[in-house]
Amino acid sequence: MHKLVLLRHGESQWNLENRFTGWTDVDLTATGEAQAREAGEVLKAEGFAFDVAFTSMQTRAIRTLNLALESMDQVYVPVIKHWRLNERHYGALQGLDKAETAAKHGEDQVKIWRRSYDVPPPPLEESDERNPALDARYVDVPDEDLPLTECLKDTVERFLPYWDVEIKPLVAAGESVIIAAHGNSLRALYKHLAGISDEDIIGVNIPTGMPLVFELDEKLKTQKFYYLGDEEKVKAAMEAVANQGKAK
Amino acid sequence: MHKLVLLRHGESQWNLENRFTGWTDVDLTATGEAQAREAGEVLKAEGFAFDVAFTSMQTRAIRTLNLALESMDQVYVPVIKHWRLNERHYGALQGLDKAETAAKHGEDQVKIWRRSYDVPPPPLEESDERNPALDARYVDVPDEDLPLTECLKDTVERFLPYWDVEIKPLVAAGESVIIAAHGNSLRALYKHLAGISDEDIIGVNIPTGMPLVFELDEKLKTQKFYYLGDEEKVKAAMEAVANQGKAK
Repeated sequence: MHKLVLLRHGESQWNLENRFTGWTDVDLTATGEAQAREAGEVLKAEGFAFDVAFTSMQTRAIRTLNLALESMDQVYVPVIKHWRLNERHYGALQGLDKAETAAKHGEDQVKIWRRSYDVPPPPLEESDERNPALDARYVDVPDEDLPLTECLKDTVERFLPYWDVEIKPLVAAGESVIIAAHGNSLRALYKHLAGISDEDIIGVNIPTGMPLVFELDEKLKTQKFYYLGDEEKVKAAMEAVANQGKAK
Repeated sequence: MHKLVLLRHGESQWNLENRFTGWTDVDLTATGEAQAREAGEVLKAEGFAFDVAFTSMQTRAIRTLNLALESMDQVYVPVIKHWRLNERHYGALQGLDKAETAAKHGEDQVKIWRRSYDVPPPPLEESDERNPALDARYVDVPDEDLPLTECLKDTVERFLPYWDVEIKPLVAAGESVIIAAHGNSLRALYKHLAGISDEDIIGVNIPTGMPLVFELDEKLKTQKFYYLGDEEKVKAAMEAVANQGKAK
């Protein structure tokens, strides 16, 4: 039996401000840092010892991983950072306030952009300074692979090949793996591992800073999955994420 | 012209307590964390943008690198952690107070153990719980490669092959590289790059948390090398290291 841990980054500055973040490189809040450290404490208490860690190219996920590994006294674990684990690109919505956007476009339209499987938000212009092709950290990625907007389906299609080729073989070989990433890149993997339909994934919310354990059998079929930590906290955190798209 | 940056970790708990540390996995003090952040600020102000970072398997070096990269807004830089960049193994002296050891064995003997090129301190017993072969993080390293004590010559002989095979080719290919490591593993590289003799290396002290830049020509011959940051601070820091081995 294999255990795989998914960890969404702790609260970021724009989680707090309720703004669409996507590929904007926002840092953790002090609360987010504390969540990351607490996630590490929980993982340590459960006896996890990782062989390898994967994360995105984004500060909030990398720092969450670093802080969790610090709490575990395991900063020596190899860390692999890759853009295919980045958050879903939110196109031209990046930087907008979620409640304001809901008041302007309607809660239903925002829910479609946030949670539909295949409707992307309006794209960035190529000339937009937020175009990832202009960001030095992606200089080795072919421009045509870098998104200007994404629906969840797009995020699935760029993350799952990386899972299949780079991560899954390590899990299959018995390595203990943690993936520290983002609400939507982790929903992409969750959908795949838990066998969630395109329709039902809309209702799935992954809370910040709560380790999510998948138990996989020899053939890497999911046997069960569960959050570590206090049950009430997990429930409250999932509800908080679900409520973000509602107008105030 | 290539620029290579060496960075010794910030002050550790045992730097502060003046104890022989070696492979003991001691963390940074608050001062050490501040030094690491400041090193990042200096590197950022000088316009450094790293393509890849190397560090040891030890918490104080890894956290120094992480904190410096945070200050630079470059946490996405790939980080490679390897035991060959670890501090010199201090054998049975690990954990002993430097001034007490000097009072007991004499300043001259301590200076020999600290600074001679080829006289190792007494080794750990294989059965000692501090034997690196018993540490989970080195499980993939053949036992016969793991030291029970080292003189600086031993540290040179395990670090330089890694430099030659893994790091130097990246520098030669034009990559911007930072190495965050330890007083003696960096002295090993310093000796090689600056062409210091076995005798003269005894007088070289690398201060904590000060970026040391080597400028190398096309053939990777050193043209010059210098510390970044305030000149008085660099001088004071080097003197503090040199004075650690004296009896109080």
